Amino acid sequence: MGNSGARLADIAARTGYSKNTVSLALRDSPRIPEATRDLIRTAARELNYLPNHVAKSLTSRETKTIGLVLADITNPILTETSRMIEKELAKLGYGTLFATSNNTRREEVAAIEMFRSRQVDGMLIYPARGDRNFEHLIKLRRANFPVVLLTCGEDIGVDMVGVDEKVGVYKAVRHFIDLGHRRIGTLDSNASEGNHEKFDGYVQALASAGIAFDPELQVSPAGYGPAAGYWAMDTLMAAANRPTAVFVANDYIAVGAVRWCQKHGLRVPDDVALIGFDNLEMSEFLSAPLSSVSYEIDILTRLAIERLLKLIAASGKLPSPRVTMIEPELAIRDSSGSAL
Amino acid sequence: MGNSGARLADIAARTGYSKNTVSLALRDSPRIPEATRDLIRTAARELNYLPNHVAKSLTSRETKTIGLVLADITNPILTETSRMIEKELAKLGYGTLFATSNNTRREEVAAIEMFRSRQVDGMLIYPARGDRNFEHLIKLRRANFPVVLLTCGEDIGVDMVGVDEKVGVYKAVRHFIDLGHRRIGTLDSNASEGNHEKFDGYVQALASAGIAFDPELQVSPAGYGPAAGYWAMDTLMAAANRPTAVFVANDYIAVGAVRWCQKHGLRVPDDVALIGFDNLEMSEFLSAPLSSVSYEIDILTRLAIERLLKLIAASGKLPSPRVTMIEPELAIRDSSGSAL
Repeated sequence: MGNSGARLADIAARTGYSKNTVSLALRDSPRIPEATRDLIRTAARELNYLPNHVAKSLTSRETKTIGLVLADITNPILTETSRMIEKELAKLGYGTLFATSNNTRREEVAAIEMFRSRQVDGMLIYPARGDRNFEHLIKLRRANFPVVLLTCGEDIGVDMVGVDEKVGVYKAVRHFIDLGHRRIGTLDSNASEGNHEKFDGYVQALASAGIAFDPELQVSPAGYGPAAGYWAMDTLMAAANRPTAVFVANDYIAVGAVRWCQKHGLRVPDDVALIGFDNLEMSEFLSAPLSSVSYEIDILTRLAIERLLKLIAASGKLPSPRVTMIEPELAIRDSSGSAL
Repeated sequence: MGNSGARLADIAARTGYSKNTVSLALRDSPRIPEATRDLIRTAARELNYLPNHVAKSLTSRETKTIGLVLADITNPILTETSRMIEKELAKLGYGTLFATSNNTRREEVAAIEMFRSRQVDGMLIYPARGDRNFEHLIKLRRANFPVVLLTCGEDIGVDMVGVDEKVGVYKAVRHFIDLGHRRIGTLDSNASEGNHEKFDGYVQALASAGIAFDPELQVSPAGYGPAAGYWAMDTLMAAANRPTAVFVANDYIAVGAVRWCQKHGLRVPDDVALIGFDNLEMSEFLSAPLSSVSYEIDILTRLAIERLLKLIAASGKLPSPRVTMIEPELAIRDSSGSAL
């Protein structure tokens, strides 16, 4: 790619003013006399200087644009996160291009391609995890492209910032066990989508109390919203030996699980105790205020952006990849109940 | 702005091939012999041709990027809409830059500036309406910039595509009246934010039945989510003469109103009937399945994009502004009850 535009230094050389004065004049600053501004602008025109982001991308190779890929935006927690990312980046002078992958690798690859052709300075990606194939992300990193994955899991040699889901679920299920529960179910579509973190935390907590995993108590909702949660709960509660407590992999799915209990005359937490994940604003306002695994989205956002900007600043000589995991806490409300 | 890059025509003239052949060669098409591709690429390099979106913006002035400004992204309906917009635009080869205004004019102006400096081809804007000052949007349109507002209301000479909120609310409140209600309240923060459409629909429906507007029955929630709805309901139900039915300006706020009733032992719909607006997925799964004013987001999205692309294609000679209003329907569930 040729560098066809003049730089501030060229205009400074041509006019005899400092780069700072040239820059102010081109931004039409009243601090520079009108006549000087005219003179500098004329020189800029003659030198084909382009005082905008397009020109910037030709000279400094920076577009001051970040690409954000979301796996699925229907979960309100992703919405909240993307809004915070956009806001933080805007403060730092970056624009946010966004795309969704619908949790498929094909669309994720297409989004990454699109972002590269638009020459974003870096990318933040919630990866699709269906087939556990991260080759395209590893390649991106190997090509020294600044990218941070907004997830946690096995280290694949790409920077990650995310919530320690395994520990979060471990805490939730341990809480049930400490209250005396032994039949503990889970509604979790992550495992079937290739993300085993939450499922591993569930099984480890059971094992810590000598409880064997019962496949009948694990149901994978057919989606990410309340409807999927409602029908998954319907399946789970058809078990011959029903659970007395259920961990639900996210609060948005739990909206449907809470409704299922209410509709079928089961009291939460007396007949079945529930804990969700994400601590959504609405969780407190369900018919049974929902206990939930909770974490600070703003901290997560800031850490991810900080890391991405460090990779961008390294301009091609990237430091070793780092995995940053935030440890979540339990927000205890009515739905998890007290000791049996 | 100078045009410093070579165009396809220049490469065609230099090499003797057609513009079409040059274009295919630069995209590395196997339809062009390898040697010809090499020859054309060499010429392109010598002429400083830039075969990417940056170059495109220099030659055709198109960046194939649309700016999307959202007033507030915490309402799930805006999330859903923005996801659909991104998806539809991606199919058409456009990238979506997005920014939020937090419902303030200052941040909206900043977002528009940012988008202009990045030379987006057009903008879709959910306008902030706090101070009813649309001067910056009118100016944008007068400068022949392609912009479509994703809202409806008074015609300000800028293209609009949106839901006919006034008619939607009229239908909801008329439904209450037809069931025999006379004390009908409303939780609506829009009016205080400068958008009177929903409030006007409420008042007109009351007037159609000869019911006078009682200011005590109109409460403005201090926000857009469940918490704001919960406390607004608390205020409304403290009225000396309580309403028997309440229209809530959006479903996300209604989540809090439904919870308030449940917590205070009021049965929905027997003690108080409720209707929301937006018909969110979760509305069906509340403790009282929520009746709601409903509309097709995908139709809305497609109409807005279609209009924007028409404005972009007009390249500077924009047709007269048009206001396109979709008429919403009622989705009746348990919360609105039956005849008194």
